[in-house]
Amino acid sequence: MAPVVALAGGVGGAKMADGLAHALAPGELTVIVNTGDDFDLWGLHICPDLDTVMYTLAGMANPTTGWGLAGDTFQALDMVERYGGETWFRLGDRDLATHILRTAWLRAGHTLSEVTARLAAALGVASVILPMTDDQVATKVQTEAGELAFQEYFVRRGWQVPVKGLCFAGVEAARPTSKALAALASARAVILCPSNPFLSLDPILALRGVREALREAFPVVAVTPIVGGQALKGPAAKMMAELGLEVSPVTVAERYKDFLDGFVLDVADACQARRVEALGLRVLTTDTVMRAPGDRVRLAREILCFADRLLTG
Amino acid sequence: MAPVVALAGGVGGAKMADGLAHALAPGELTVIVNTGDDFDLWGLHICPDLDTVMYTLAGMANPTTGWGLAGDTFQALDMVERYGGETWFRLGDRDLATHILRTAWLRAGHTLSEVTARLAAALGVASVILPMTDDQVATKVQTEAGELAFQEYFVRRGWQVPVKGLCFAGVEAARPTSKALAALASARAVILCPSNPFLSLDPILALRGVREALREAFPVVAVTPIVGGQALKGPAAKMMAELGLEVSPVTVAERYKDFLDGFVLDVADACQARRVEALGLRVLTTDTVMRAPGDRVRLAREILCFADRLLTG
Repeated sequence: MAPVVALAGGVGGAKMADGLAHALAPGELTVIVNTGDDFDLWGLHICPDLDTVMYTLAGMANPTTGWGLAGDTFQALDMVERYGGETWFRLGDRDLATHILRTAWLRAGHTLSEVTARLAAALGVASVILPMTDDQVATKVQTEAGELAFQEYFVRRGWQVPVKGLCFAGVEAARPTSKALAALASARAVILCPSNPFLSLDPILALRGVREALREAFPVVAVTPIVGGQALKGPAAKMMAELGLEVSPVTVAERYKDFLDGFVLDVADACQARRVEALGLRVLTTDTVMRAPGDRVRLAREILCFADRLLTG
Repeated sequence: MAPVVALAGGVGGAKMADGLAHALAPGELTVIVNTGDDFDLWGLHICPDLDTVMYTLAGMANPTTGWGLAGDTFQALDMVERYGGETWFRLGDRDLATHILRTAWLRAGHTLSEVTARLAAALGVASVILPMTDDQVATKVQTEAGELAFQEYFVRRGWQVPVKGLCFAGVEAARPTSKALAALASARAVILCPSNPFLSLDPILALRGVREALREAFPVVAVTPIVGGQALKGPAAKMMAELGLEVSPVTVAERYKDFLDGFVLDVADACQARRVEALGLRVLTTDTVMRAPGDRVRLAREILCFADRLLTG
């Protein structure tokens, strides 16, 4: 069966992908994941969004933080601290195995796509997880404190520095993976997860050919990352305000209207449905907040039904 | 004060070095350590002998195994196994921090000497730990199953394959570190620890200039790795037999007689004292078996007194 394709970044995207994976038959879901957050630490190549999606789909994610592995320990980190190494990015012991093997396999000449597939298969993930690109793209955040590497901004400074703009270094030369383009071309629905639009989705959309592929795809549905004027997690709302944009789901719908067919609005923002419809989009208004795992599946089922309705007119 | 210099390999050498460190004033001991066992695993550079010496001198060694860190956990290893990575070499979580940072610092262009000094200082080691060389030397074991990389032979096959010979790949091009040569040149005594002569000491001695430096040094004392026809740990006795040599401390004394001044024999081999003396060496016969930490210091003090007696005639 043609895949349902999700575009995802961090924790919110991973939860949505997990709901979709449970709502679909095994292997029907393909997740294209942001790699603009990837960086090197202690000589290891870290892919935070790929790992969050992989651990979540494997049922191994830390339920408290949303990232990292459930029940992980921090013995290596503790020892790195003793050695005077950098410890602001908290890598767990089990998590380290992922970064160590990924780095070794990449150095041995495998692509990030191949490495990701191998890791995910070992963890029993039935869904297809695809990095957005096998090339290097690095999100840089222009702030009042100068340009910061993504993790400098996000983790080290806890996204407290006001943002003036963003760029995705390397994105002009990078290509989306052929599997990602093929998945979009054959998708029976594309879902933009409720990930941060600036940090998680824009890097994917900035890759050559992705926006065009989304214009060709049908139906394409975005799930709001903004609920009642706030982001559920992370700096999406704060960044919207700092960038001089209205802190509203309408801002997101507007941003993606060239390829969107449907938009999922939270009940808290039901009053905005008219404005989103005025952009030419169909709207599903529902409870989009995923508190418990059951919420993810319920929301996923509603979105898949909504997509089916768009398909049948 | 001029340093006492120890030549050491693995666990036995580390214990002896620890005894010497406790018997001397802080900083008086310099340990030149075998790096022929070094290898790469999961893309990380592992230096088993350097780490065993460092952890032992830091008081952090696992008292049961002699190698690795006391109380270490194996979460990362467990996860590597899940990913299908190699797990025959058991790296602990805290131990991993050492290999990760060493590898990162080496890649950043620092020498193994610099990296070792930085790691040891962070662990509060007062003695000077020097890798025998900053170049690549890899011990290869010729066996009935063909030539094996050292850790293949030692850990993976548990030194059960009969040995036909050894070679130290790269040793012709490698140079001892200038600090090691300087330490030997200024040493007030040189102690060859009770390490495996073939696997731990021969690689150091095979480096250009080391044997000559030892001939110049005075006094040079070797501590027997063979007690009552057996090695206390590891394959020294087994290898001696396989190489067609007499399994005896005399074999070791004979091997190093060109630069040795004194030899420390175990009481179990007191009957061999005449044969060792016949090689032109002075002999100290004592209990050389280091069961408890107190034994190390007692033995170290006896050896240092013996060296002093050699010095004063």
